Amino acid sequence: MKELQKKAVAFRDERNWQQFHKPKDLALSLSLEASELLELFQWKTDEEALAENHQDMQDELADVVIYALLIAEATNIDLYDAIENKIKKNGLKYPVEKASGSRVKYTEL
Amino acid sequence: MKELQKKAVAFRDERNWQQFHKPKDLALSLSLEASELLELFQWKTDEEALAENHQDMQDELADVVIYALLIAEATNIDLYDAIENKIKKNGLKYPVEKASGSRVKYTEL
Amino acid sequence: MKELQKKAVAFRDERNWQQFHKPKDLALSLSLEASELLELFQWKTDEEALAENHQDMQDELADVVIYALLIAEATNIDLYDAIENKIKKNGLKYPVEKASGSRVKYTEL
Amino acid sequence: MKELQKKAVAFRDERNWQQFHKPKDLALSLSLEASELLELFQWKTDEEALAENHQDMQDELADVVIYALLIAEATNIDLYDAIENKIKKNGLKYPVEKASGSRVKYTEL
Repeated sequence: MKELQKKAVAFRDERNWQQFHKPKDLALSLSLEASELLELFQWKTDEEALAENHQDMQDELADVVIYALLIAEATNIDLYDAIENKIKKNGLKYPVEKASGSRVKYTEL
Repeated sequence: MKELQKKAVAFRDERNWQQFHKPKDLALSLSLEASELLELFQWKTDEEALAENHQDMQDELADVVIYALLIAEATNIDLYDAIENKIKKNGLKYPVEKASGSRVKYTEL
Repeated sequence: MKELQKKAVAFRDERNWQQFHKPKDLALSLSLEASELLELFQWKTDEEALAENHQDMQDELADVVIYALLIAEATNIDLYDAIENKIKKNGLKYPVEKASGSRVKYTEL
Repeated sequence: MKELQKKAVAFRDERNWQQFHKPKDLALSLSLEASELLELFQWKTDEEALAENHQDMQDELADVVIYALLIAEATNIDLYDAIENKIKKNGLKYPVEKASGSRVKYTEL
């Protein structure tokens, strides 16, 4: 993950883009890439989307994570630690005995 | 990254949630988490958002990447390879000599 | 529509919020409200979502349009004209004879 | 508003698209259009976005409201009433004396 982050940051710096990469615009951009991923499923079943758009899915999913790596860099977040901690927090919000087999939000568990 | 993906998948399977984790709903969920991250910047400057919401940023950014890892698992995408390939593709869309210091989209370069 | 726009603008001005209502933050806010509407369908079929969340749907859909009215006001757009014109444009992108019964994007028609 | 809704519904029915227009996919589509509107502000100040993209803003804002009208039709929501009611509800969440000149969320007022 650190290695991919370095590549993404190098890509940015080679193009002298750090001046544009304010956290708010990066978060906005990540949201736009998430929408491009979601668009691959518009009007489609899972099966149709996977059959028609698997290469595009790889590209859009990658763009989402590239922005996540750039946001982490720009806001001094250790993404690995953040994910480990969040999985633990999610475990407290969704304890196995209550959440098992249920799709409801933790506020309604 | 593989290690984090294993943890995210284990979390899902302990709760018997694989039945809900269709790719379309996962992509929808990733988009919702991206919006929750973006919400931390709503009505705020970068400075205000970072001062007020840094811990929440870690959590929301983590949720975005957790869903990216789950989508990759559900759709048989090697996320590491996908990101490496996408950075190369982006390099072709935004060659250094043209894109340096410019914020315009590749379609207008 | 003009009448609803007046109410939304009056609501804003009574609270002295015009200072915050820059178009970029309004567009960001509209996107967040669209996500809150979409969240009502997360992990659910259409039938489940309609049965469980119909009142919330009214509220979230209303919030989306309220922001659309505020953006129109802030950017000097006549929303009625814009919609009429866009329906005409969409008709050129999706001519009946080609688009009938098809879910593909106009770029692939 | 009723008139615009009739035009949007006629557009849909001429193309025999009602079969695709499930509420979940419509909500997803509205979210995508909201992102296209937001994209017009990506990497830009308000001034830059308005100067460069005013016609596109009209089109994207129109698409957002067209989907809102279609969702209202598909889910039996009277959009006019929903907006009137929501403005009243928002008034309770953001009373003038507390919310005046403040950008904080009602949960923190």
